[in-house]
Amino acid sequence: MSPWKAAQPGDPVSAIDTPALVLDLDAFERNLQRMAKALAGSTVRLRPHAKSHKCPEIARRQVALGAVGVCCQKVSEAAVFVAAGIQDVLVTNEVMGDAKIRHLLELARQARIGVLVDHPQQIQALALAAQAQSVKLDVYVEVNVGANRCGVAPGDAAAPLARQIAASAPLRFAGLQCYHGSAQHLRSPQARADAVRSAVDAARRTVKAIEACGIAVERVTGAGTGTFMHERDSGVFNELQAGSYVFMDRDYGDNQRGEGEIAFEHALFVRTTVMSRPGADRAVVDAGLKASSVDSGMPTVWQRPDLVYAKAADEHGTLATVNEAALALGDRLLLVPGHCDPTVNLYDELVCIRGDRVEAIWPITARGALL
Amino acid sequence: MSPWKAAQPGDPVSAIDTPALVLDLDAFERNLQRMAKALAGSTVRLRPHAKSHKCPEIARRQVALGAVGVCCQKVSEAAVFVAAGIQDVLVTNEVMGDAKIRHLLELARQARIGVLVDHPQQIQALALAAQAQSVKLDVYVEVNVGANRCGVAPGDAAAPLARQIAASAPLRFAGLQCYHGSAQHLRSPQARADAVRSAVDAARRTVKAIEACGIAVERVTGAGTGTFMHERDSGVFNELQAGSYVFMDRDYGDNQRGEGEIAFEHALFVRTTVMSRPGADRAVVDAGLKASSVDSGMPTVWQRPDLVYAKAADEHGTLATVNEAALALGDRLLLVPGHCDPTVNLYDELVCIRGDRVEAIWPITARGALL
Repeated sequence: MSPWKAAQPGDPVSAIDTPALVLDLDAFERNLQRMAKALAGSTVRLRPHAKSHKCPEIARRQVALGAVGVCCQKVSEAAVFVAAGIQDVLVTNEVMGDAKIRHLLELARQARIGVLVDHPQQIQALALAAQAQSVKLDVYVEVNVGANRCGVAPGDAAAPLARQIAASAPLRFAGLQCYHGSAQHLRSPQARADAVRSAVDAARRTVKAIEACGIAVERVTGAGTGTFMHERDSGVFNELQAGSYVFMDRDYGDNQRGEGEIAFEHALFVRTTVMSRPGADRAVVDAGLKASSVDSGMPTVWQRPDLVYAKAADEHGTLATVNEAALALGDRLLLVPGHCDPTVNLYDELVCIRGDRVEAIWPITARGALL
Repeated sequence: MSPWKAAQPGDPVSAIDTPALVLDLDAFERNLQRMAKALAGSTVRLRPHAKSHKCPEIARRQVALGAVGVCCQKVSEAAVFVAAGIQDVLVTNEVMGDAKIRHLLELARQARIGVLVDHPQQIQALALAAQAQSVKLDVYVEVNVGANRCGVAPGDAAAPLARQIAASAPLRFAGLQCYHGSAQHLRSPQARADAVRSAVDAARRTVKAIEACGIAVERVTGAGTGTFMHERDSGVFNELQAGSYVFMDRDYGDNQRGEGEIAFEHALFVRTTVMSRPGADRAVVDAGLKASSVDSGMPTVWQRPDLVYAKAADEHGTLATVNEAALALGDRLLLVPGHCDPTVNLYDELVCIRGDRVEAIWPITARGALL
């Protein structure tokens, strides 16, 4: 961690040291409102994914606007949000290992906790530990609705798992996890709609197979920022897990927007300084891949279509520039990260700005919560 | 940060929670010895790059084996190592902005501090601030010896900067930074040798141009783990900045080794658990791209040539497997990260093991030191 901070509340934006992770509060709040409005009057509820922001201040604002709780990917991440007062957390992942299950059950004493399974062995381990510790746990069966990662095949394969959960006294069969991750960044609106149609069909078949065993499926949960309106309107999903909508990033910005799809704004930026200007053809900024994750490609330079962030090294970003007058040594720029989630995970704090002032510093408390 | 630790000293290796960043101390110590031996009896000194490890415990061991100090990329990173007692730190970067320069000069009161420049404006700002604060600073001119990032062109262009530094009372012209970053991962030994030959020629011409002005060039510093033996033998470089040799990573491991080149060992691993086994064709581990940086490609699975880490999502790693018996749910594996530097930057601690025991936990104190 840096021994000093990039900024303090009250500082002018121009004084923020770089690289810093900056949240534009006006844009962020509009994004929260847009999502609340998209679900207003619907029976489909929002459980936003906290893996995107890892920040209790943001989770509290999401819950205040109607979110039922949050999703997390890691047990240690969930612990941060439970400690911050979030009362309903779904760990959208299989949890393997005695230590992890022990921590998970400790959380289940303090809050409503859910977890995923896709194998009988996981259910057995959870049931055994929960029995021993006398705690209740919501358990969801993960279904592979198209991402080809975790999850059982759609349809009948989920039924024996649901039965096994329902038959385990300390576990509650809570429903199905049906997240189609690889659909989120399909660029064409039609391709995203088609992918989710197929995922909805897979979810529906699985619900039917379980109901045929006399087991109710209370919850079908999933969806992300790229597709959530389709899941919302599906008649099958009744909970949405979108996360990136609070920030947006370059990768989501590259999706073509379909008719009726909500335009979320870029609210998250990496503030950076031009530290070298070795020639007319390039400038080097102080934000490299340790400041803006490049797993989903390079960042773009906010409101500077004349500049291309061409190459990232660990601590250097090389911009291709079109002319010598375009940038001077010491100039400050804002980058739109290629991918918000792993970029947020590189920082300890969000520098929250409103207009030209720093309004607050929010700790990214679950940064690095990998366990 | 995770509210609990992956392991404690004394734990068996089998009990380490996952994902965890594991350092094999035997392999690590052999790597340190190999580097010390490569420079024994030479006048070329070692100033290893601490951006790779960000860990004072490692820096102390490097200095104990003869390193003159360390390199850092960021002022805040340098502050961590100065606070840990490292007495000679070179910030191998241009430093722009009043706040950064103020912090740099505070460090220069406590230790010998060097910094790079490639523009008259940077020298002016450093000289002005150092004068006002009555501190001395070592200043190096960065030369573009082939990486096409920062730095002045080789030859005459460096001379006016050297003169300007030499003429500024609080600054000391310390020499030239001649790092050829893009040469480090050229796969063929011949290509690396050729690239460094060209860099050495560029450095030599620049030294001559500055000496022709009557200014001595005390230090020519640069080199990385992929090429350092060539710089060592160049007769021009007299300081080496290799960093990754302590750990090695998949990307360096993919370099073909030339005759006489030292074989460093993989000493850094990400320990991970199989959390889902949805079919014979794949397994999913709990280490994704927030646990092993993918900027330089995927990790490999240590001592398991039958397994391919095919795809990384934020918190999931998908392994392609050749047969169903190859892996079971709950199995633990070690990954060799694609790139050590940004992977280390994802963790708060190194879990140091020797044989089958956890021997120590070393804080990665400069993790996230971006300023």
